[in-house]
Amino acid sequence: MSLYPSLEDMLVDKMVQSQNTAIATAAAQQQQYQAYAPSAPATKDGNGLYPTFKESAIHPVGAGAVAPMYPDLFEYMGLELSKEMIQANLPQYMPPANNVSTAIVPQQSAVSVVNNANMVAPVTGHFTGLQRGQVTNGIRELVMCKGADKKVGLRVQAINKGIFVCVVVKNSPAALAGLRFGDQILQINGTLVAGFSVDDVHKLLKKSDNNNISVVVRDRPFERAITLHKDSSGSFGFQFNNGTITAIVKDSSAARNGLLVDQQLLEVNGQNVIAMKDKEIGQLINATEQIITLTIVPKMIYDVMMKKLSSSWLRGKMDHSVPDF
Amino acid sequence: MSLYPSLEDMLVDKMVQSQNTAIATAAAQQQQYQAYAPSAPATKDGNGLYPTFKESAIHPVGAGAVAPMYPDLFEYMGLELSKEMIQANLPQYMPPANNVSTAIVPQQSAVSVVNNANMVAPVTGHFTGLQRGQVTNGIRELVMCKGADKKVGLRVQAINKGIFVCVVVKNSPAALAGLRFGDQILQINGTLVAGFSVDDVHKLLKKSDNNNISVVVRDRPFERAITLHKDSSGSFGFQFNNGTITAIVKDSSAARNGLLVDQQLLEVNGQNVIAMKDKEIGQLINATEQIITLTIVPKMIYDVMMKKLSSSWLRGKMDHSVPDF
Repeated sequence: MSLYPSLEDMLVDKMVQSQNTAIATAAAQQQQYQAYAPSAPATKDGNGLYPTFKESAIHPVGAGAVAPMYPDLFEYMGLELSKEMIQANLPQYMPPANNVSTAIVPQQSAVSVVNNANMVAPVTGHFTGLQRGQVTNGIRELVMCKGADKKVGLRVQAINKGIFVCVVVKNSPAALAGLRFGDQILQINGTLVAGFSVDDVHKLLKKSDNNNISVVVRDRPFERAITLHKDSSGSFGFQFNNGTITAIVKDSSAARNGLLVDQQLLEVNGQNVIAMKDKEIGQLINATEQIITLTIVPKMIYDVMMKKLSSSWLRGKMDHSVPDF
Repeated sequence: MSLYPSLEDMLVDKMVQSQNTAIATAAAQQQQYQAYAPSAPATKDGNGLYPTFKESAIHPVGAGAVAPMYPDLFEYMGLELSKEMIQANLPQYMPPANNVSTAIVPQQSAVSVVNNANMVAPVTGHFTGLQRGQVTNGIRELVMCKGADKKVGLRVQAINKGIFVCVVVKNSPAALAGLRFGDQILQINGTLVAGFSVDDVHKLLKKSDNNNISVVVRDRPFERAITLHKDSSGSFGFQFNNGTITAIVKDSSAARNGLLVDQQLLEVNGQNVIAMKDKEIGQLINATEQIITLTIVPKMIYDVMMKKLSSSWLRGKMDHSVPDF
């Protein structure tokens, strides 16, 4: 089962695959035709410089026609449209073309076609924002030191017997080490913090050495990332107020991809936007090109994580830098 | 940055890596020793049948000693402990051994070591429960038909302008198509359902044909999976009541991996346990071998999804089959 990061990816992938099937079908028909009437002249317009798409795609081996000036699809952009390839792509209800022995199609080529055909993201591809914004829920270890003020630049919250990062101060050791809002701290210097209070964690950090503070975190358990595409009017199709999504535009990319209201915007292409003014967030969103990855969390969970913290206090503190990856 | 599915994975991976470093360090020291005193007899106990670990690991090329009867580590279980490999693994503060020319170490071998060293899951590996229980948040398309009773076997809930699957009736077309609790429905037969009410969805399903109902879903947006390991007493380290996690045992795998209380158990190794009796869930958990993957959702979100549905009504309906994958 192949899974796509956005609905647009799925639609384009389907289109590409149906096109491939159409080409393969045409190829099979052409081959059958040629098998029955090998000496019939191939249809060309004029002097053979512009072979029809079908012919260049199929490259009938036994036709012996004038070689076209354009490189044919066999060599074009690394596309593999050999007879075996096309044969492997034939829909199952198509009879195999007479002059192709299916028995000798190597299994390997069929496998590579499957891999190409099951492409997971033809549109979003290697978009860096998607990778920066990825929420993996995996576990990683990082090493911090204390800053000049003997602090690591971190505020945590105890939720459901777990310790969660709710503030990462900009340019602090915690920010440099790569901690993010919503990360769950599992271990500090080998001590499990499950069930700890916020004070327990502060004490543990206070008594640790200035260097080499080892922290094991689980990557943002409550969050998820969603990828949208800009439409022709330059909009992704959602409205927000104080960073909370309030409305989804009908038939927009946000609607197609299932963005929900009452979700808090945490990151835009992996860049933290917590406690940013809506205007600034809007500028960030408008500045992105075709694709955007939003990191979101349900508002009710966000409220639990942010209780006792005023957003005006946060505004000056929060790390809003673009992460390396 | 490498991410691990469980803390145990991370710890074992670290151990393996530090062991590799230790072997490499020993190798470098031995090589230096041999470079300074090439004719010194290698330390053997007795007749050379039991070479020390260091020697068999290093296989000094210039020593010309009696060949040991045991196959040495060069050939053992496909481990690659060639000189170049060891050299590439040397810690950076180690001086390069005299008789190894670092300049000729091929770059390729260093790269392959990096790939091996950054193994993401040495413990959980290819555990099928982990793959069955994986929550991807991606988009997939599936095709359903209606059953003999003209129903697809589905109940949905409208939450935050999205449509969520909250009941999949066992052996129904929806269950056979692979719909799961918590899946967000994005499209039915090409119609976007964002903002629809539950009634709108029912109408849409009612007026659709009996066959070929195309449904596009986003994989369980609010859920996540967590992987735990059994300890020597056979426990994973958590308690639950009515499927809600109520307590985490100190220093257990649940505590190490950051399992939280007030989370609802939805799946055990990918198998749905919603509305199952606690006793049955306990039997399922105890029956798993060493590793377990739990799919969970915060209780407050679960309550929203299940409102108006009684769990006794659900018990007979819900699809509890083990998914294929």
